[in-house]
Amino acid sequence: MSKKISGFSKFTKEEKINWLAENYFKNSSVTIATIKQYWNDTTKLQQLHDDFIENTISNFYLPLGVAPNFLINDEEYAIPMVTEESSVVAAASLVAKFWSTKGGFKTTVLGTTKIGQLHFIYAGEKANLETYFNNNKSKLYAATASITKNMEKRGGGILDIQLVDKTDALEDYYQLHITFETKDSMGANFINSCLEAIATQFRTDEIEIVMSILSNYVPECLVRAEVSCKIEDLGGEDPQKFAEKFYQAVKIAEVEPYRAVTHNKGIMNGIDAVVIATGNDFRAVEAGSHAYASRSGRYTSLSHCSIDNGIFKFWLELPLAVGTVGGITALHPLAKLSLEMLQKPSAKDLMQIMATAGLAQNFAALRALTTKGIQHGHMKMHLQNILNQLGVTHLEKEEITKYFDGKTVSHAAVVSKFNTLRKTLN
Amino acid sequence: MSKKISGFSKFTKEEKINWLAENYFKNSSVTIATIKQYWNDTTKLQQLHDDFIENTISNFYLPLGVAPNFLINDEEYAIPMVTEESSVVAAASLVAKFWSTKGGFKTTVLGTTKIGQLHFIYAGEKANLETYFNNNKSKLYAATASITKNMEKRGGGILDIQLVDKTDALEDYYQLHITFETKDSMGANFINSCLEAIATQFRTDEIEIVMSILSNYVPECLVRAEVSCKIEDLGGEDPQKFAEKFYQAVKIAEVEPYRAVTHNKGIMNGIDAVVIATGNDFRAVEAGSHAYASRSGRYTSLSHCSIDNGIFKFWLELPLAVGTVGGITALHPLAKLSLEMLQKPSAKDLMQIMATAGLAQNFAALRALTTKGIQHGHMKMHLQNILNQLGVTHLEKEEITKYFDGKTVSHAAVVSKFNTLRKTLN
Repeated sequence: MSKKISGFSKFTKEEKINWLAENYFKNSSVTIATIKQYWNDTTKLQQLHDDFIENTISNFYLPLGVAPNFLINDEEYAIPMVTEESSVVAAASLVAKFWSTKGGFKTTVLGTTKIGQLHFIYAGEKANLETYFNNNKSKLYAATASITKNMEKRGGGILDIQLVDKTDALEDYYQLHITFETKDSMGANFINSCLEAIATQFRTDEIEIVMSILSNYVPECLVRAEVSCKIEDLGGEDPQKFAEKFYQAVKIAEVEPYRAVTHNKGIMNGIDAVVIATGNDFRAVEAGSHAYASRSGRYTSLSHCSIDNGIFKFWLELPLAVGTVGGITALHPLAKLSLEMLQKPSAKDLMQIMATAGLAQNFAALRALTTKGIQHGHMKMHLQNILNQLGVTHLEKEEITKYFDGKTVSHAAVVSKFNTLRKTLN
Repeated sequence: MSKKISGFSKFTKEEKINWLAENYFKNSSVTIATIKQYWNDTTKLQQLHDDFIENTISNFYLPLGVAPNFLINDEEYAIPMVTEESSVVAAASLVAKFWSTKGGFKTTVLGTTKIGQLHFIYAGEKANLETYFNNNKSKLYAATASITKNMEKRGGGILDIQLVDKTDALEDYYQLHITFETKDSMGANFINSCLEAIATQFRTDEIEIVMSILSNYVPECLVRAEVSCKIEDLGGEDPQKFAEKFYQAVKIAEVEPYRAVTHNKGIMNGIDAVVIATGNDFRAVEAGSHAYASRSGRYTSLSHCSIDNGIFKFWLELPLAVGTVGGITALHPLAKLSLEMLQKPSAKDLMQIMATAGLAQNFAALRALTTKGIQHGHMKMHLQNILNQLGVTHLEKEEITKYFDGKTVSHAAVVSKFNTLRKTLN
């Protein structure tokens, strides 16, 4: 029987769930109960969350955790993080505390401009196109007046419009490459609205607009975060040895793409957790960051390390196009709460907080990898997750956790230990 | 007053929230109420979600939506999607239906192998290292026996161990480059545990292991999704014109990195929504995909288009390392439910479903961009979000929505219209 359905989006939420349960699940009543146990009791709040997207059936919980003790440019922060990965918040907290006694994190915004492009096809004389562009440039700005009015009041707007010849890449392909400042908003809607207004103005019989759209590649919307201290202040058994091995691990990420991808993935573990917590778009941030990592023609590390005159320094630079107004930042009550926890930051403040979270996460990963190995911490969390899945009692959990101290945790080994224990206890 | 805190992770959840409210919020009671209104009534269920990470204070809701009418290799699917971006599920649903009458999506898994590496420093003779490696290779496999036992029963395990000379990139830098098959698990824990066991076995006084870790760069763990039909079957006013403009938009993404990044970001909008819904790790998938997009030395489009003999074809290839067992796939009740909705797929099935969601999203974006512009659909959703934020009544919503039909939506314009309307009504 076909499961083709018409008008699904017009169904009520109950009707959608019933249809799904009947068509795609074995046990309808269990399915429906599972979906509904995640609904919020407050109808109005649930309605708000239902309306964020189409065909919402429930609320997917991701844990909102907090990493305290961050010192960033001498300000103290507790950073809200949303992630499903068990070690991220724990690692951030440890590293925050570690650096808080060594001057903390130092951050700088290196740029805030964003990019939008009109992609078009023009088969005529290039000189004519240039003349047309130059003669009409002011009209292009004027076409966006009603959209840019408010943004200009806040100090933003369109900074520059350039005509770019891309015919060496593709026949008859030109662009208007437009630079924007969008202040505290991420700016996607603003930029796209401006671009479409410009397109309408720019279009002629000879100029065929293929598309007008912002770019998520924002190499000029850049932030830097750094930590540094005397090598001896790194502590541990042999700080010099630690610093050198850490340095080597970063160098390896700089030269080896297979390692760089995972190295940067670790940075994004920290950044995305703050991106989601503050209602920003992690796909935009991910795309921009990884493209930036590949800008030299070889995919490489976003963070770097130096050891000079007894000083250990570790830093990263990456593009972050994020906002603290607009989108769901103010609509999602917990995104709003996250921003309040961060003392209502500007977009520039938020870029710096996110970069810090990324650098902290990277430091934690490299420290673990170059000392005890990554599995030591992971295994502890992994064991707890397996035990939760098995539904062990509190007593069994204690016993099994003690047993696996220092041993390799595998699902099979835990189940086997669990079965033996149950037999003994019954 | 310093907000430095010790032993935060040992606090109870209540204590953590109280400390945060006192130290980082103006109005403690409102803050605490907001955090708690997101707690689940069922204590045991809430405990499960609290335990996923450290310092959990609440559940961050992301909407779980459903896109029905997907036809993939002649099987019907309703795809669960978790995303905060308003247009993603709506776009997926429309495109699923569009292609369901044209043969649907055709997908193939091109490879499933994953990579882990031992990075080490060795300053001696290369020939000696090679001899040592060749003489001890079987011992390296043997060192992982207790870990690989279960995986081998499922048809997975270590496929190959190679010694790689990287000394041209970095002095004395070598690797063991190890290939894995991890079947239905994403395999991060399995791979890292194997690598650490191999490292312990491989290490000598001359071989200094810097780190052992899986790679999120998985160009051999690859999936392809495709749609195709006769140009005339594309429908609309002028299918030939539509096909050509769409083709041009893809060509532009192939040659222009500023466009490619956003183009691929759109693909990831679809993929990540399924990644999160099924309890997988979107940072891993993002890192692997964007690095793959840059593999030629220039960042380019993950999807491609052809028009040959009257046939329109649109496809993508990208690496996806995901699992349907392990991690939180079975622990998060809604991740489990998502997998059930997808008919309990294998990891290979899931790769194909995700690739389909990505291609569908990309098709939707390109169709909108090359016809009405992206803002047409966005604006409708944007307007609804602004109205929700303003807390308008049902009547006001209807009135304002009608007013903005065909007009540019900006926050200022909506607020202004809202204020006028309120004045009129009061």
